[in-house]
Amino acid sequence: MAQTSPRKLRYAMVGGGRDAFIGQVHRAAMALDGRYELVAGALSSQPDKAIASGRDLGLAAARNHGSWQDLLAHELSLPAEQRVDLVSIVTPNHVHHEVARAFADAGLHVVCDKPLVHTSAQAGDLVRVVAQRGTVFGVTYNYTGYPMVRQAREMVRQGVIGEVRKVVVEYHQGWLAKRVEGGQNKQADWRTDPARSGIAGAMGDIGSHAENLIATVTGLEAERLCADLTAFVPGRQLDDDASLLLRFHGGARGVLLASQIAAGFENDLRLRVFGSEGSLDWRQEDPNQLVHAPLDAPRRVLTRGSPWLCESARRASRLPTGHPEAFLEAFANVYLGVAEDIHARLAGQPADPLAADYPRVEDGARGVRFIEATVASAASEQKWTAFEGLGDHRATD
Amino acid sequence: MAQTSPRKLRYAMVGGGRDAFIGQVHRAAMALDGRYELVAGALSSQPDKAIASGRDLGLAAARNHGSWQDLLAHELSLPAEQRVDLVSIVTPNHVHHEVARAFADAGLHVVCDKPLVHTSAQAGDLVRVVAQRGTVFGVTYNYTGYPMVRQAREMVRQGVIGEVRKVVVEYHQGWLAKRVEGGQNKQADWRTDPARSGIAGAMGDIGSHAENLIATVTGLEAERLCADLTAFVPGRQLDDDASLLLRFHGGARGVLLASQIAAGFENDLRLRVFGSEGSLDWRQEDPNQLVHAPLDAPRRVLTRGSPWLCESARRASRLPTGHPEAFLEAFANVYLGVAEDIHARLAGQPADPLAADYPRVEDGARGVRFIEATVASAASEQKWTAFEGLGDHRATD
Amino acid sequence: MAQTSPRKLRYAMVGGGRDAFIGQVHRAAMALDGRYELVAGALSSQPDKAIASGRDLGLAAARNHGSWQDLLAHELSLPAEQRVDLVSIVTPNHVHHEVARAFADAGLHVVCDKPLVHTSAQAGDLVRVVAQRGTVFGVTYNYTGYPMVRQAREMVRQGVIGEVRKVVVEYHQGWLAKRVEGGQNKQADWRTDPARSGIAGAMGDIGSHAENLIATVTGLEAERLCADLTAFVPGRQLDDDASLLLRFHGGARGVLLASQIAAGFENDLRLRVFGSEGSLDWRQEDPNQLVHAPLDAPRRVLTRGSPWLCESARRASRLPTGHPEAFLEAFANVYLGVAEDIHARLAGQPADPLAADYPRVEDGARGVRFIEATVASAASEQKWTAFEGLGDHRATD
Amino acid sequence: MAQTSPRKLRYAMVGGGRDAFIGQVHRAAMALDGRYELVAGALSSQPDKAIASGRDLGLAAARNHGSWQDLLAHELSLPAEQRVDLVSIVTPNHVHHEVARAFADAGLHVVCDKPLVHTSAQAGDLVRVVAQRGTVFGVTYNYTGYPMVRQAREMVRQGVIGEVRKVVVEYHQGWLAKRVEGGQNKQADWRTDPARSGIAGAMGDIGSHAENLIATVTGLEAERLCADLTAFVPGRQLDDDASLLLRFHGGARGVLLASQIAAGFENDLRLRVFGSEGSLDWRQEDPNQLVHAPLDAPRRVLTRGSPWLCESARRASRLPTGHPEAFLEAFANVYLGVAEDIHARLAGQPADPLAADYPRVEDGARGVRFIEATVASAASEQKWTAFEGLGDHRATD
Repeated sequence: MAQTSPRKLRYAMVGGGRDAFIGQVHRAAMALDGRYELVAGALSSQPDKAIASGRDLGLAAARNHGSWQDLLAHELSLPAEQRVDLVSIVTPNHVHHEVARAFADAGLHVVCDKPLVHTSAQAGDLVRVVAQRGTVFGVTYNYTGYPMVRQAREMVRQGVIGEVRKVVVEYHQGWLAKRVEGGQNKQADWRTDPARSGIAGAMGDIGSHAENLIATVTGLEAERLCADLTAFVPGRQLDDDASLLLRFHGGARGVLLASQIAAGFENDLRLRVFGSEGSLDWRQEDPNQLVHAPLDAPRRVLTRGSPWLCESARRASRLPTGHPEAFLEAFANVYLGVAEDIHARLAGQPADPLAADYPRVEDGARGVRFIEATVASAASEQKWTAFEGLGDHRATD
Repeated sequence: MAQTSPRKLRYAMVGGGRDAFIGQVHRAAMALDGRYELVAGALSSQPDKAIASGRDLGLAAARNHGSWQDLLAHELSLPAEQRVDLVSIVTPNHVHHEVARAFADAGLHVVCDKPLVHTSAQAGDLVRVVAQRGTVFGVTYNYTGYPMVRQAREMVRQGVIGEVRKVVVEYHQGWLAKRVEGGQNKQADWRTDPARSGIAGAMGDIGSHAENLIATVTGLEAERLCADLTAFVPGRQLDDDASLLLRFHGGARGVLLASQIAAGFENDLRLRVFGSEGSLDWRQEDPNQLVHAPLDAPRRVLTRGSPWLCESARRASRLPTGHPEAFLEAFANVYLGVAEDIHARLAGQPADPLAADYPRVEDGARGVRFIEATVASAASEQKWTAFEGLGDHRATD
Repeated sequence: MAQTSPRKLRYAMVGGGRDAFIGQVHRAAMALDGRYELVAGALSSQPDKAIASGRDLGLAAARNHGSWQDLLAHELSLPAEQRVDLVSIVTPNHVHHEVARAFADAGLHVVCDKPLVHTSAQAGDLVRVVAQRGTVFGVTYNYTGYPMVRQAREMVRQGVIGEVRKVVVEYHQGWLAKRVEGGQNKQADWRTDPARSGIAGAMGDIGSHAENLIATVTGLEAERLCADLTAFVPGRQLDDDASLLLRFHGGARGVLLASQIAAGFENDLRLRVFGSEGSLDWRQEDPNQLVHAPLDAPRRVLTRGSPWLCESARRASRLPTGHPEAFLEAFANVYLGVAEDIHARLAGQPADPLAADYPRVEDGARGVRFIEATVASAASEQKWTAFEGLGDHRATD
Repeated sequence: MAQTSPRKLRYAMVGGGRDAFIGQVHRAAMALDGRYELVAGALSSQPDKAIASGRDLGLAAARNHGSWQDLLAHELSLPAEQRVDLVSIVTPNHVHHEVARAFADAGLHVVCDKPLVHTSAQAGDLVRVVAQRGTVFGVTYNYTGYPMVRQAREMVRQGVIGEVRKVVVEYHQGWLAKRVEGGQNKQADWRTDPARSGIAGAMGDIGSHAENLIATVTGLEAERLCADLTAFVPGRQLDDDASLLLRFHGGARGVLLASQIAAGFENDLRLRVFGSEGSLDWRQEDPNQLVHAPLDAPRRVLTRGSPWLCESARRASRLPTGHPEAFLEAFANVYLGVAEDIHARLAGQPADPLAADYPRVEDGARGVRFIEATVASAASEQKWTAFEGLGDHRATD
């Protein structure tokens, strides 16, 4: 946990009102290290609910708004030293673009949930706005916040497993194995609704995490992909199951599986990276360990908190070995990286890359393009669909 | 996470200043559900360090004290509506009794780390004071906060595994497998120092958790015990390894193993309960699952967050299945139970037992007597040493 | 283990001489239940080595041959009551067709290793010959001999997991992660040599096991497939890594991964079947358990030897629960099924299907066509390559 | 598997007739490596059943006897070159001593199941007879035949984990968790019957395996022990649960748990050895791996078949890594060691200690004394009961 105490960053939240599960997760993650305080909000698209939710959270009346437009207008009317430092956007996907663009364009830092937006046009637009304004823009690909994911990334970078040859990432959930939308399950409702989730279902929701995990850990960029998308549950409009073959620049191969009809599986995200000198194996449901199998030696089980881990993994860890950390801490690590970047800017200094370690708008944009390419591939008779992951990304370098 | 928002409880902390690991854990656990705010403190026994630590945490100067005596005096000078609701005591063990007694005697609620105090005389004294004042007194046997521990407790209570016959609890750590005291490891210093840790080492530190876990889950009270305590590392004055045989009232048997020289083990607390109709198996390092083996049917793997868990386990859970929770959330659950109890008292209502679910001063006292009986047994030629776990406890019922 | 003792079946072995690992496995598997005795052989393609190997194994000189042609001729010269009942063919793949065809055509029963032959033309030819002669022809897809695989098959058949939606089978090995051919590793030499292994490497060797496991457990037939085959190790002519998307008749989907460059993985064959009512999960390296996750209830861990398993699984088991069985017993179960079928024929009775449970020539033929379709797909720009798994198979029904 | 082919050893079996599970295991284990052939027997104490069982197994009428006395007399009447090399005794325990003594005294080699005999007087007698005759006498402590147990033994010997400080061995079974004796379960009948099983139940049956595993792997000899024995199931005369504290010569400590009322556990024998430089962890139900945790480095998972294992582990292995071996192969390794010793004697050469690796009569005798000391301790008010494990053993060195 943080030893020093720079001032708390003031944040506003858009979405995340009463009954919104993920808003609570974001707030808990932001609270964990004492680096943020919630001071303003537009917590629902329904004004009454927004206000009531803000009251629950103790927002001052003047900063508790019925719409994000009001929130933004009011913040801009405040002197800079009172204004929020950033906004956290935790609405359903279809609202992301409009809100994120407006706040970024106004020069505020933004954290936005994934998948970033619905279309690559929106994504490109957002990347440009953020580049123009020079603001911080984090995307909560929260699984990259796990210390052992960062350890894996570092081991790949250091060449510990040699040249990466194949990546297998799978993300198995079972919560949509039967028809739960149209009932009490609000999350199921919007996740399976094209109007709110966009062109992809399982692929957009969890497939995008899988894509990001590959990119984060291996640094590989897909060059071509071949996808099979299926909606198994009758009446469902979006895919609830996705299987992809991947070919990366440089010759590596990949497989990405994302399913929400994997009955009995909960949130089983697993990454395996096979290199010429060894392999790595990590599972989100057992996140405190990373298995490293060297080519010609016994498997080694690396555990979070151990002194022999890399600096990046150690910084992302709060508790000693054997005292497990989990989902919330990983989520908090994304926000910690954002806080470090914002504080560096407030101090007029370059951010320490090891500290300002979080997924950015370009990662989110690449994820959107990946979803589009997947959907295009699924509709194609051709085996391979090209993927231009670096288009806009490169533009911002 | 809590949907409603009673006012935050104001707390002071004694101990837990700069570099004190466990103080940070307590603060993070208290922050997690937004039920507490830190408003005062005496964060170290060294006045300078205490003040500096309080500044780090943003304490107002008037409530940032160099000693717990000053803290207490100042709080008592405040009007009741400004005074702290409770104090959290996270000092080394030898300071617990004096501080806890003073605050409880002043009518303040207290949370104190375990083991509660050094002697059963101190423990009995504390139980009496708390009973007289009618205050809340929680002890942070944090492992009982895990949802799947609560599930196990409920299954035992419901008779799912029949009559409990044998309990095996083991707690294996390896961090004291070599001589680390006398160097940079402050924690090792005081844990191995009789002046600060009392009469037991591993038995006091982790053995007390193991004892509490048995009592919490099974409700069994030991009647007799037989202990072998060893200090393996040369020069160490307190045990670093403990093995106990237990006989419970009613005929059940038990084995308790607590070792800090188990090289390569991190924090491997495991509980197995064998009943006439099945068994339960839980491991702290894999805390989101509980294995239930019915007598004549396949093993079942129960996972945190599942709808078929008991009310108590569900209330102790914040995230869906597969999104792992861990140490911090379990710790927070102890504080959540304390908050529920204090808020009930503030509201003049009886506490909901499912909500006000936390280890109490009597649990802490029984733990102290257990440590004493263990040390006595280790010095005895007789196989069995009687254990009077309920002495003071019964007095308070 | 078998309680009754029909006479031992006399067998000859072709291949499997000195230093041939797999020949020893076959002999040990045949010996396990006391149903077979080795009486003749042509144990190597090198006459001297064949004779020496036969002497090692105690073969009588008259039945210890330097070539399989001599073996066949001599057996046919014997009176029927002395002649071998069957021949076990454990040569490298390229010899399978010629030998198997000759013995089957002579009316002898045959067991042949997988993959069955090099081409679907050879396979079809073999299916026809066996059908004409009415002989027993087993193929040692040994992994289907595991009791818990048979349990999985029965649960699928009984509809325990509802309608099968998706099958994920993966087979990860790492022994070819570096260039080991061309050195001391004879197995690596022929496995990577097109002349001896045919058109596929990893896909032929372990991919064919994976294909068979899907077909055995689910009964699904692939309709189309999409394959990516890669040879990662420089200079290697055959694939050492295969990734396939599958579409089955009836709408189910599948993924098949077979890799021999998965550094650090040993023989990690895993099958997951996701149905509308639950899922099944089995791993070859932990073969005594099968995890069944019902849709809305806790996971159940089924273990070999338990009384609640199906008849087929119980018959395939020799030891009580907890006394692990493994590779050899599974292998023996294939031979046990063959023995049951031959003995039924010797008795002039129909075989008990539960007893005569083994992969047949049609399974081997389908496997060969599957390899061909995979290689064709890998070379195609089209996403989907049709698979006619049932061509010859149907003809024999 | 053995490459060379010395002549098969001729053996007789006493006990192990129809319906006798363990007799089948012994025969399968002896058959596995082709080193033995069954040529004579007295397969039951009931003459009719003995004869019928021998017919099932194909024994020649002249060597198929109704009593072990007849068997012995007939064998002694044969010329040495026809006589059996050894006898395998797989009767219930109470018959062991009489039979084993008679055959050993006649100069025949013997393999006998464990626990060896009922009393230490019988055990001492047997040790003396064997020493006088100079014969081979193996005891089927079969778990010591696992390759990874031999690897653990070698690592302890080599000092890889430093000085051994603590050993925890547990053996949990659940098959006697309810009253199954007095019904269809013949094994339960004699295991719970003092007349046939001797003075101990769980302790004699599985506790003796646990004791032997400690001694084999660590080489430590207990000096004192403290036992709690319980019969949980009403009406049961012998213990079904045992918990022991151990003190070894030299200062190491131990814990031994053996329970047959551990509902839901199958055959869960686990050994942990904690040393000053690391620890080892092995489980019988997952026997192909051994976890080695060095003091200050990540855990290593050693797997059977790996080239970096010790010679002793490699020799005990038949299949490559990932192709699991299990119970039967471990059992066979005990018989392989016996065969090596007998063949060495037949050749008039000293046995290679790495080859002639099997538990001997002295191990069996120590096990009997251990059971007696345990029962004595359970009845004692004194904490520690002395253990003279080496009494007779030393005499034979």
